[in-house]
Amino acid sequence: DTNNTNIKLSLPVVCFVWQLSMIILFGVFVRYNEESDTHWVDYRKENNITSDIENDYYFRYPSFQDVHVMIFVGFGFLMTFLKRYSFGAVGFNFLVAAFGIQWALLMQGWFHSLDYTDGKIKIGIENLINADFCVAGCLIAYGAVLGKVSPVQLLVMTLFGVTLFAVEEYIILNVLHAKDAGGSMVIHTFGAYYGLSISWVLYRPNLDKSKHLNGSVYHSDVFAMIGTLFLWMFWPSFNSAIADHGDGQHRAAINTYLALASTVLTTVAMSSLFEKTGKLDMVHIQNSTLAGGVAVGTAAEFMLSPYGSLIVGFFCGIISTLGYIYFSPFLEEKLKIQDTCGIHNLHAMPGVIGGIVGAISAAAATNTVYGDLGLENTFDFTGPFAKRVPTIQGGYQAAGLCVALCFGIGGGIFVGLVLKLPIWGDPADENCFDDEIYWEVPEDEESVPPILAYNNHMIPNKHADM
Amino acid sequence: DTNNTNIKLSLPVVCFVWQLSMIILFGVFVRYNEESDTHWVDYRKENNITSDIENDYYFRYPSFQDVHVMIFVGFGFLMTFLKRYSFGAVGFNFLVAAFGIQWALLMQGWFHSLDYTDGKIKIGIENLINADFCVAGCLIAYGAVLGKVSPVQLLVMTLFGVTLFAVEEYIILNVLHAKDAGGSMVIHTFGAYYGLSISWVLYRPNLDKSKHLNGSVYHSDVFAMIGTLFLWMFWPSFNSAIADHGDGQHRAAINTYLALASTVLTTVAMSSLFEKTGKLDMVHIQNSTLAGGVAVGTAAEFMLSPYGSLIVGFFCGIISTLGYIYFSPFLEEKLKIQDTCGIHNLHAMPGVIGGIVGAISAAAATNTVYGDLGLENTFDFTGPFAKRVPTIQGGYQAAGLCVALCFGIGGGIFVGLVLKLPIWGDPADENCFDDEIYWEVPEDEESVPPILAYNNHMIPNKHADM
Amino acid sequence: DTNNTNIKLSLPVVCFVWQLSMIILFGVFVRYNEESDTHWVDYRKENNITSDIENDYYFRYPSFQDVHVMIFVGFGFLMTFLKRYSFGAVGFNFLVAAFGIQWALLMQGWFHSLDYTDGKIKIGIENLINADFCVAGCLIAYGAVLGKVSPVQLLVMTLFGVTLFAVEEYIILNVLHAKDAGGSMVIHTFGAYYGLSISWVLYRPNLDKSKHLNGSVYHSDVFAMIGTLFLWMFWPSFNSAIADHGDGQHRAAINTYLALASTVLTTVAMSSLFEKTGKLDMVHIQNSTLAGGVAVGTAAEFMLSPYGSLIVGFFCGIISTLGYIYFSPFLEEKLKIQDTCGIHNLHAMPGVIGGIVGAISAAAATNTVYGDLGLENTFDFTGPFAKRVPTIQGGYQAAGLCVALCFGIGGGIFVGLVLKLPIWGDPADENCFDDEIYWEVPEDEESVPPILAYNNHMIPNKHADM
Repeated sequence: DTNNTNIKLSLPVVCFVWQLSMIILFGVFVRYNEESDTHWVDYRKENNITSDIENDYYFRYPSFQDVHVMIFVGFGFLMTFLKRYSFGAVGFNFLVAAFGIQWALLMQGWFHSLDYTDGKIKIGIENLINADFCVAGCLIAYGAVLGKVSPVQLLVMTLFGVTLFAVEEYIILNVLHAKDAGGSMVIHTFGAYYGLSISWVLYRPNLDKSKHLNGSVYHSDVFAMIGTLFLWMFWPSFNSAIADHGDGQHRAAINTYLALASTVLTTVAMSSLFEKTGKLDMVHIQNSTLAGGVAVGTAAEFMLSPYGSLIVGFFCGIISTLGYIYFSPFLEEKLKIQDTCGIHNLHAMPGVIGGIVGAISAAAATNTVYGDLGLENTFDFTGPFAKRVPTIQGGYQAAGLCVALCFGIGGGIFVGLVLKLPIWGDPADENCFDDEIYWEVPEDEESVPPILAYNNHMIPNKHADM
Repeated sequence: DTNNTNIKLSLPVVCFVWQLSMIILFGVFVRYNEESDTHWVDYRKENNITSDIENDYYFRYPSFQDVHVMIFVGFGFLMTFLKRYSFGAVGFNFLVAAFGIQWALLMQGWFHSLDYTDGKIKIGIENLINADFCVAGCLIAYGAVLGKVSPVQLLVMTLFGVTLFAVEEYIILNVLHAKDAGGSMVIHTFGAYYGLSISWVLYRPNLDKSKHLNGSVYHSDVFAMIGTLFLWMFWPSFNSAIADHGDGQHRAAINTYLALASTVLTTVAMSSLFEKTGKLDMVHIQNSTLAGGVAVGTAAEFMLSPYGSLIVGFFCGIISTLGYIYFSPFLEEKLKIQDTCGIHNLHAMPGVIGGIVGAISAAAATNTVYGDLGLENTFDFTGPFAKRVPTIQGGYQAAGLCVALCFGIGGGIFVGLVLKLPIWGDPADENCFDDEIYWEVPEDEESVPPILAYNNHMIPNKHADM
Repeated sequence: DTNNTNIKLSLPVVCFVWQLSMIILFGVFVRYNEESDTHWVDYRKENNITSDIENDYYFRYPSFQDVHVMIFVGFGFLMTFLKRYSFGAVGFNFLVAAFGIQWALLMQGWFHSLDYTDGKIKIGIENLINADFCVAGCLIAYGAVLGKVSPVQLLVMTLFGVTLFAVEEYIILNVLHAKDAGGSMVIHTFGAYYGLSISWVLYRPNLDKSKHLNGSVYHSDVFAMIGTLFLWMFWPSFNSAIADHGDGQHRAAINTYLALASTVLTTVAMSSLFEKTGKLDMVHIQNSTLAGGVAVGTAAEFMLSPYGSLIVGFFCGIISTLGYIYFSPFLEEKLKIQDTCGIHNLHAMPGVIGGIVGAISAAAATNTVYGDLGLENTFDFTGPFAKRVPTIQGGYQAAGLCVALCFGIGGGIFVGLVLKLPIWGDPADENCFDDEIYWEVPEDEESVPPILAYNNHMIPNKHADM
């Protein structure tokens, strides 16, 4: 009962074909925009831009790099908590993200950055941030299926995931004109339900066979804290990266900083309260402390006010930790959804809360609080949307949340069915959560002593000196 | 002789009560300032600010994020060096910091950012940095008591620590009008003596019982280097984060970069010189290499000149390493101060040196070196302090150092007595430095083989595969 | 046959003498420049600079900090992959970098930042970045000799390396007026051939004696991924850090982002294709994924166009991975070059490719693509070089590559001979790759059980609980 996990043909073929396609499509479609092109010197003069420092690059580059760290180190290391799947966690995360950002630049480019005068996508720093954002949705989904799929399946998941993302994002941000600076709806809700639906379709009734590897060891938990902390620290940059210049970015960073601080306190409280002797559980500290950042994503740019951010964080820490304690077992036993990293608790529930908070706070916006110009600026009530008012905006925000949910669930079921085909080299139930399947794992010397050899044969985990 | 370390009631209660209080106080007091509020668009026009890029956010956000990394990853990972207290190091550091920054925003806000027209604290990016700074003082103090206190005690320490910090900071910076951009006095001197005094009051004569856990293993030392390096690399941001726009931030970064480079060389030299066969000791490399950043804190903004910075770093590397070799044992045996991380060598002595360097370089400032306008700008000789001259300023700097010392020692003794109450769930002597007390620690599989079971019962550290 | 590896005298002496010399030389030569000096307030007025935000500090500080992370965490952790040389990897990297940046500030300062009016070197943020760059060359070279040299040898290597770097850089950038924003030639080609030549001179025919330590264990590979990812993520900052303000920095970041993404895909493909069962090899993922960043260094600032960057990354992933599979064994067996980290595959070949790509793309530059002003700006066709045209520029770029190669190989052979002197305390063949020689290594408890004692004596690696 061992699956064929040999991906010697499929993985290289997918990578090469994909990368060559990217080169061709970029050759046909992608160019620098006016701020990253050498003609900037002329553009600057024509537009009366007084200094190079007003190039969008300087408004967004620091946030971009923080987001980049979240995508590659944050998501990658957060998933290293498994005792023998750290290579897969950080390595496949790396592969998936590098793969996805290229496709995201194209997909998002066609929707948002197409220059109709010459049919080219014009890219700048904001496109790079959006590509990272887009890939974040797929990496969230990876969390649900961590250890149970092959890298080829991950690439397929990402290919479809990025495509679906670009469409739902266009509908939510452009058609519905909803605001979602930090992506509570567009990124987290979509990504989480996409991953959960895939995991539901790929349900493994006999996953218990690899139960001994589905847990952490001491140092793998410390590695995972690297991921947690870089996500936590840089979340203010995530939620402010594509917010409006000036007060928009400023306010988004403050709101996120506060929501996250509040979440830590209630996560610790709940973790202690629900363990037998008041001890803390690393699973909660690694994950639920981040829920406030997710939930404040949509409203980060709004006048949520500092205490509003604290309240959002307060409840998300509670709900997310309760999710790990009560809801995850329920999901697995009753709904047949195996969620390795608990993304339902970290991204799905907080994402939905974030969408609701966004809808309510948009609907409650007033000229008194925002100022006339401030209201117009924050919600972009200009052009075709010049007549929209806050209450109506609140309705469109809620509609946006529904779109994200539908795309996540529907897309996930479809992609899950595709991934069920027996051609992708996924591991057998007894080989899940094991790097040995897809990686050359170093032989750890201490297992060699003959006196221990017998024991080591009994125990799947053969690294004694690690 | 086992203490009751069950914190199932106390920890959740403190966290919830605290967080609810924060929400109420933020609701009453805290609002966005004019640069993070939607009215910025009007404010910008009224104040003839030509571009959004002149929002203070863009001057300080990159430094803020670096400081944020120092607080959460830097301090957190620096303390992971203990073989079985890495969860406590990085996890409680996380809790304490998230807890403290909220209280700091309020306390510092009342002193520095209160808008008297409406009685509200108006916050922006600089407040976030200052809150991180304030918490740094408490995290320094945590280093002295690492492994010996309960999380509830840490929260109490932080509550009082932040309060004391805000008061001494107000006295030093506003009343005395001393300058302390990098906080040699306000942060390091205060925080270190605060922690040392607490540790003195909480002296454990039988701490030897957990001696076997008070040390590192190979990979825990590598984890600690993550903390060291992020502190070292981002220290220029720490010292320049709230310095004056333009040359002030620029100069502070240069001075810190140089002081730290110099410290590394003399730390390595001293470490090699005082070990038996010239080998290096990780304790010195992890800690003393940072002393130059502490000591250049106050004067970073001044015209210390590049070679001045090198000199400061030179001596601090020597003094700090000698501290680990000679002074720490003396502190423990004679003065009964148990200092787990050696904060006396990393923060206390370099902090005092930093205060003195600041006083001397302020007193020696001249119009020739600074320029007329430059002198006025650097020392803010304006308003009620328009008539102050450098020599006088030097005196006030020295006075500021004394204030920091007094608050640290006095406050620490008081808080230490509070923490001595037998209600906080602190560990027994034989359970110090052990994550098992407050954390669900994963069972590491390799301990299972029956042939080793007996040995593992003998050895407190039961993780064989970690 | 044990070498004398006692460096108790030599290491402290070198560090102290060096640091004192630095203080004296900085005292004589180094001052703040007009943007980091308190006279900035006057300078600003005289030069009609409207806002402090136009201080070069704000254009470059975020990139500087990213580069700083690459130097200290990136290079340092990338080399922690060896099972028992992580202290040496991250610790000596720290020492060498802190040592080198000071000397680099002087050497590069004399060539590039000397103010002839007063004979002083005037430093600002760009000098700090360039010092970090300069040291990168030496850290690349360290990769070739990792585990085989003493810290004193590393310091000698760095002293000469920085000196040679400053001269070749001056020739390439100023005399030849070649462009090399990301240093494919100046940093990577020079540094790699410098290290390889030294390793060639220091060839150890009996290195097999320490073969058991020349490999990774599970968690050391995860530590190395920290280095890989921080290098990968921040490489756009590396290549754009000293690029032209505005579109120059913007474009360099985009090109590097794309080249690196492309490299990941082809590295994974090749790694899978050439392993027996399609498994991935951590050595490739840790190293070859970075090759695209190296190779796009020179041309990052040019109008390489997005698809051009993808193409460069595409080929570098392939070539670099093939290098690890076929060329490294050949280098060691036939050419007698022992290259611990495989810098030939990560820096040497991609560096040369980068130089060639730079030459071709410079030669192919046209006024149509760049615009008249854009062309002049990008290649600095001003002053004495006002009459230069792209085709000629391409020739000078190629000449620059040759200069880097000559300095690397020639300098490396010379320095290798110096390091062959039997006075530097380098380890015997059987002690290579072992931290025990130069570090106090914590005794790991699990080795104590008597039942294992015999085995542990047999096995050099005695850390059972790590």
